[in-house]
Amino acid sequence: MSKIEAINRLLNPSSIAIVGVSKDFTSISGKPMKNLLSHQYKGKIYPVNPKYNDIEGIQCYPSILEIPGEVDVALIAVSSKRMLQILDDCKEKGVHHLVLFGSGFAEVGEEGMALQEKVLAKAQQAGIHILGPNCVGLLNVKDGIPMGFATSFETKVGFNAGNVGFASQSGAIGFSLFGLAQEENIGFSYIVNTGNQMDIHSLDCIEYMLEDVETKVVAGYLEGIPDGELLIKISESSKQLNKPVILLKAGRSELGQQAALSHTASLTGSDEAFRAVAKQFGLITVNDVDDMIDAMKVFSRGKRAKGNRIVTISNSGAAGIAMADYSEELGLNMVPLSSNTGEKVKKLIPPYGSALNPIDVTAQALKEQHILTETLEILIDDDEVDAIVFQTTFGGELGFKICQQIIDIDQKTDKPILVTITGTQELTGKGREVLQKAGVPVYATSYKTMLALKHLVNYSHFVKNGVSNERLIPEITALQLEDVQGVWTEVRVKEELTKLSVRVPEGKMIKDQSQLSEIKEALNYPVVCKVISEDVLHKTDAGGVKVNIQNAQQLQQAYEDILQSVHAYNPTARIEGVLAEEMILDDALEMFIGVKDDPQFGSLIVCGLGGIFIEVLKDVSIRKAPLDKGEALEMLKELKGYPLLEGVRGGSKRDISSLVDVLVRVSHFASSSNGKISEMDINPLWVFDEGMGVAALDGIIVWKENSQDPVSVRN
Amino acid sequence: MSKIEAINRLLNPSSIAIVGVSKDFTSISGKPMKNLLSHQYKGKIYPVNPKYNDIEGIQCYPSILEIPGEVDVALIAVSSKRMLQILDDCKEKGVHHLVLFGSGFAEVGEEGMALQEKVLAKAQQAGIHILGPNCVGLLNVKDGIPMGFATSFETKVGFNAGNVGFASQSGAIGFSLFGLAQEENIGFSYIVNTGNQMDIHSLDCIEYMLEDVETKVVAGYLEGIPDGELLIKISESSKQLNKPVILLKAGRSELGQQAALSHTASLTGSDEAFRAVAKQFGLITVNDVDDMIDAMKVFSRGKRAKGNRIVTISNSGAAGIAMADYSEELGLNMVPLSSNTGEKVKKLIPPYGSALNPIDVTAQALKEQHILTETLEILIDDDEVDAIVFQTTFGGELGFKICQQIIDIDQKTDKPILVTITGTQELTGKGREVLQKAGVPVYATSYKTMLALKHLVNYSHFVKNGVSNERLIPEITALQLEDVQGVWTEVRVKEELTKLSVRVPEGKMIKDQSQLSEIKEALNYPVVCKVISEDVLHKTDAGGVKVNIQNAQQLQQAYEDILQSVHAYNPTARIEGVLAEEMILDDALEMFIGVKDDPQFGSLIVCGLGGIFIEVLKDVSIRKAPLDKGEALEMLKELKGYPLLEGVRGGSKRDISSLVDVLVRVSHFASSSNGKISEMDINPLWVFDEGMGVAALDGIIVWKENSQDPVSVRN
Repeated sequence: MSKIEAINRLLNPSSIAIVGVSKDFTSISGKPMKNLLSHQYKGKIYPVNPKYNDIEGIQCYPSILEIPGEVDVALIAVSSKRMLQILDDCKEKGVHHLVLFGSGFAEVGEEGMALQEKVLAKAQQAGIHILGPNCVGLLNVKDGIPMGFATSFETKVGFNAGNVGFASQSGAIGFSLFGLAQEENIGFSYIVNTGNQMDIHSLDCIEYMLEDVETKVVAGYLEGIPDGELLIKISESSKQLNKPVILLKAGRSELGQQAALSHTASLTGSDEAFRAVAKQFGLITVNDVDDMIDAMKVFSRGKRAKGNRIVTISNSGAAGIAMADYSEELGLNMVPLSSNTGEKVKKLIPPYGSALNPIDVTAQALKEQHILTETLEILIDDDEVDAIVFQTTFGGELGFKICQQIIDIDQKTDKPILVTITGTQELTGKGREVLQKAGVPVYATSYKTMLALKHLVNYSHFVKNGVSNERLIPEITALQLEDVQGVWTEVRVKEELTKLSVRVPEGKMIKDQSQLSEIKEALNYPVVCKVISEDVLHKTDAGGVKVNIQNAQQLQQAYEDILQSVHAYNPTARIEGVLAEEMILDDALEMFIGVKDDPQFGSLIVCGLGGIFIEVLKDVSIRKAPLDKGEALEMLKELKGYPLLEGVRGGSKRDISSLVDVLVRVSHFASSSNGKISEMDINPLWVFDEGMGVAALDGIIVWKENSQDPVSVRN
Repeated sequence: MSKIEAINRLLNPSSIAIVGVSKDFTSISGKPMKNLLSHQYKGKIYPVNPKYNDIEGIQCYPSILEIPGEVDVALIAVSSKRMLQILDDCKEKGVHHLVLFGSGFAEVGEEGMALQEKVLAKAQQAGIHILGPNCVGLLNVKDGIPMGFATSFETKVGFNAGNVGFASQSGAIGFSLFGLAQEENIGFSYIVNTGNQMDIHSLDCIEYMLEDVETKVVAGYLEGIPDGELLIKISESSKQLNKPVILLKAGRSELGQQAALSHTASLTGSDEAFRAVAKQFGLITVNDVDDMIDAMKVFSRGKRAKGNRIVTISNSGAAGIAMADYSEELGLNMVPLSSNTGEKVKKLIPPYGSALNPIDVTAQALKEQHILTETLEILIDDDEVDAIVFQTTFGGELGFKICQQIIDIDQKTDKPILVTITGTQELTGKGREVLQKAGVPVYATSYKTMLALKHLVNYSHFVKNGVSNERLIPEITALQLEDVQGVWTEVRVKEELTKLSVRVPEGKMIKDQSQLSEIKEALNYPVVCKVISEDVLHKTDAGGVKVNIQNAQQLQQAYEDILQSVHAYNPTARIEGVLAEEMILDDALEMFIGVKDDPQFGSLIVCGLGGIFIEVLKDVSIRKAPLDKGEALEMLKELKGYPLLEGVRGGSKRDISSLVDVLVRVSHFASSSNGKISEMDINPLWVFDEGMGVAALDGIIVWKENSQDPVSVRN
């Protein structure tokens, strides 16, 4: 059975056994039973513990084997030491879906890791799927089936079902976030805590929830990326299905990554790669529990923004200023009102208000509340407005009435309306509550509102425009696989680049004195000479480069000098020869393009400017290969040094379009190389003036097989 | 009477008149009376309105002149058109403190502005101080005296008095923030809304509150900085009195600044200058209402961190990871535990927990809650820990008990303890509430906690170390004031720099052919020649610069070429002469130092690296002059290009200490110039290798008098 089917059964069980159940309902092994009872689970419950005859009048079995009926899901609350035996019992009984609460596995070190591996092997052999271990359980919200001991299962107000699915590697963060979101009336379909993720992991659950018809928004708390390819597949489904995926990934910092390692034994992976991929593929990333809840709220409403033109209305000038500040800080687009709309608003509001954007209707709306709602309706009718933020500090009956009117207006339009009500629970709680019940996204501060709106606008844009129309599929010569091993040095890499239609300087390889004699009169001087050796990666340091060689005599001298210097630098270096290359004299901007293998995501493509931009500012841009032209251009625009490509203060505009072409071609080369590149570097890549193209002056590829320790390939 | 005394009387009135009072207690002119009554104001209330005989049994007067007793404060709820008459009455009656609620003044345009000016002039003449107009009022929290119509005055649960004073230019933001803070049990002394700030402005109120004995924390919401010097004075008091000043300044963005202009008619001023000054002088800046409340909470507790060494404890590994992430992102310092402390913690917690920092005591603490509190006590006893963050997701009775124990521990130590409880109101509300009542700072998410902690650590550090011991007061030759006008060009500026002990290249001014003949054989070649003219600020563009002049003959030629080119470039340019200067050949890093006059803060000093750092990256650092050495070094360290000064990847280390000296000297020159510099630029300033000093290669000063439109002084 696939993991997806297994998750479906885990979340929708018709019978549940609780192995190692306790009568002490305040204990971890007692709570799962208590929670099923208090939420009136409608399926069969089979407590298993040889110590008891029954619990709360429900018959208790000495072993899982004694249960008379079929068991869909077994919740296992016994010590890790008994797990292998339990697995045997489950196999015999035909129980295929287990939830392991206990600790004592991979998170406690080598011994636990060994046990975990044994358990997994046995489970896989028996066709059993496992959630956990080291997890607090899962919850089918729509049918009210809590399976586990999360504190939030103990609510007396019941669960609020809805369209948000949530998978969390951490039980504490997952269920406390769930509880907080429920308080704000956000409805959920399912929530699953995956813990150590021995078998079923967070991305499996996300994949399941994306396919679930009742789930329209999927959220995940991740400490590591268990499967990079699956994450990308998820991002594609997210886009096709128009279901946003919101991710809170921990372990962004070095210290955080260390802490994650000792927590649920997960490799957090490179956070940089994760961020790059999430951005490229339209996954929504949040940094904080609040931010996650705020995003869930706006997406749960289900509306999308047609564009990025935002208008804000408030009864407080100060709130308007704040929204304008946050808009700029978050890269949102508060547009001027069209003259028609501006005129209409002006007629409504007092002269000391503002009919610009932000619109300030002033406290006059305390007397005449129609001002607020009529302004809102004017904006709904304006096709040049894509989303509206409505802010008020009004409380009491008046505030409540305004909220009711907003709900009416919100239901009549598919234009997103986000509301901010800043005020105490006592004064504004009732209004907020009625909005929450109606699913209108409402926030306590302008900052929260604008941040949620940013997620909505970005995602809406991505779903609409994610893939550029210019997706170019360059023809990449298939590589001979036997060839791709060890290190490819400059000459071999340049051959390959030529096949990719990337210009390299014209050059001749000189392998010995006789070749030197043959070619030395025929070259177009001036030339540059460079040693070619896989043992000499820093050619300049080894004295392996001579520039500005004007004639045959100087070439002869340079050839000898280079061989001598390199030998002195590294007597055992295997020297393939010396490359004599045309010396390009055109003015150019120096850049580099690199490929790096990421354990999670495969080939990543990296680019940046040379010199201080990389040395001092670490100014690089990263994407997963392959790229289309649009993505390649986005990559460049992200660089702090991008203005240099556009030509800043008298500098010339460079050939950005050729650079984009090369990025695309190299990225396709990387992705078509079957994941075999460990590291590739084209450095420097010279970018000439507009229309003049680019040229790769040096390059290296380190293939994965035979690749030793990471090598630094800068020259 | 000073404004400070006036604010004192406004906040502590023994009798209040309400002019223009309404019997309709739901209206703006009815609410002030209703609020005084419902909060049982103990002083005399005098309603004034010719329409009524009495309101709620309290005698009503037809005019302020008819009131029998003395009137401390008059709340004015009449139309702006009647203000001049009201002022006459107040003067006659001897009422010296007015609160103006109404709109119709500077915020509505020219007519309103003219009225506002008339009202102010009349008030000043009569010795009357005014709060407002366009404000919702003020509140003496400790005595429960609400004066105005803010929604939060209508609370039925009463006010929570305490040690936070708050001045807000906006009524809506001010009082909604106040309400939200009160809900979290933060206690206030006073809150004042200043509105249009015709007379009393937000900084006046902050100054008053700093001096108030019951106020220990002062907060301000500002849209503009009405008085830059006062802000700096406030920062000095803040430090001396060890009372933090927390500022939320709106109008950070361009759009926000425009919106602020049309709101309370305040000039927001340069936000860049404000941020630089706040940072330099230890004012705490926040970006958001939530951030402000969170900062109030931690400062209200009154503890300071002795250093920046932070340790976190939680019962969830995921929370630990989150705290580590935020710590790094916010620049906090989570230190490894000392071996002694590490051992002690290890003994307490289960093997699958973590005795590193973040400490993860695991969910085992659900069974054995002493683990959490004993770990906390171990950290309290460790002198190498300066602040502790305690995170839990436990709710119910257990969570409540843990909170009670935290309170006991918190009271026994002066070490700051910040608590995060992530969970629903239903499950964790009781624990949170008891902590809030005890004044222990408690937050709903780790991010909020860590951000508040950052403010605490920064402020504690500033109070302890704000002024460097190396405060150097260079001897600055007093300027002859008649001299400082117009534009000083290179030669004059270099004379001044020489007096400041700043090295400039040796040079001779050539005013005519005869001077040229005199000196041409005596120069130390090679030299550089540059035109000197206040009409030619971009010398190179005008062909006014010749480099690498090797002998007398070349000098003659260069002199003639320059005069000719400059004349062709600008036939009316007044040419002072040509400067022939030694050509420095040492390798140097190119920087610039500038001085800019800021309307709020006077002379600001700006520095940065040349080339792409300024052209592309806009990488500059700003402070208010004068600087001490510590501040100057901080300024440099803030630059993205700072690694170039330290020597990056083989580059040489530059003479940072000489550069610091020059920054200090120039800053003192600027501040001693009596605010007369409009703009000054030393560009380029060459910084040589360590021990080799710096040299100013060009410079200009534009003095304020006679300064025309802003000129660009780059060369």
